[in-house]
Amino acid sequence: MKRIAFLLVAVATLASVGTYLVPTFGQADKNSAPVYVTKMPPGYRDWRLISVAHEEGSLHSFAAILGNDVAIKAFREGTLPYPDGTIIAALHYGHIPSEENNKVFGDPQSFVPGPPTNVQFVVKDSKKYAATGGWGFGHFNKDGTLGNDALMKTCFPCHAKASRDLVFTHYAP
Amino acid sequence: MKRIAFLLVAVATLASVGTYLVPTFGQADKNSAPVYVTKMPPGYRDWRLISVAHEEGSLHSFAAILGNDVAIKAFREGTLPYPDGTIIAALHYGHIPSEENNKVFGDPQSFVPGPPTNVQFVVKDSKKYAATGGWGFGHFNKDGTLGNDALMKTCFPCHAKASRDLVFTHYAP
Repeated sequence: MKRIAFLLVAVATLASVGTYLVPTFGQADKNSAPVYVTKMPPGYRDWRLISVAHEEGSLHSFAAILGNDVAIKAFREGTLPYPDGTIIAALHYGHIPSEENNKVFGDPQSFVPGPPTNVQFVVKDSKKYAATGGWGFGHFNKDGTLGNDALMKTCFPCHAKASRDLVFTHYAP
Repeated sequence: MKRIAFLLVAVATLASVGTYLVPTFGQADKNSAPVYVTKMPPGYRDWRLISVAHEEGSLHSFAAILGNDVAIKAFREGTLPYPDGTIIAALHYGHIPSEENNKVFGDPQSFVPGPPTNVQFVVKDSKKYAATGGWGFGHFNKDGTLGNDALMKTCFPCHAKASRDLVFTHYAP
């Protein structure tokens, strides 16, 4: 779970939001404790597609990556860092074989989304989320509960390793 | 290639469009030759997400399945057969490992879309496409050229084996 947490998005351009706000890698100082995203952005399932993703290892996870209008515009225009207001949603599902399709095709070749596992968001607000590179991270389990503290602490340090403003995902044309 | 062709969509409820128009399985009679989709529906990249898909075997293909407003409404409401005006788009890419992600994660676990390979459409028009179960099939190669005749002839017979009005894809919530 650790590795999929916020696989998709991150902020490497710390300079743009003031590195003095992130004194220790992956940790906030006393004056800027990490703030997480605790409410799902309304209407995210109607957002447009950024890309798709597939994680193996122990995860067997399928994802659709959607973006709000600010996100889609930024991805299409290659804007970096992502502007405030950018929200990226990662809809995660199990990655399972399709018995129905494989029966038709005659080969065990087809994989489809299984039941939803979680939905994750990153929200760009360079002031509110200054302690974590300008991005707020949110994780919602399939029952709607939030990701626990241990999980949430893994988001920023991992995303900070992404090369494009803490974002792993590339736009799929 | 044969097997990915129109993997996603099909019409099994032939009764609803008149089986007399489809005298031989997968073939049209002289009065109702197959009509294919030869123009890309405008704006399809902005359509909403239906689901994602992954085909292995010899394909190594990743797909995002998008739908126009008529399609999204029908999928969400479980409407069968799909109403005239339904259009489903399958955006296909290579399914490739992400060197960037795997370096961060430390495991070869991450797969992302490679270059686009083709875009396929199914368009529901029970009169225009009566010879193929009410669905028109379209295949556009990455250079914009159309799928050849041999490929196009595989679409309907395969999709006719899908259980929900020739459509393989399920809606991912």
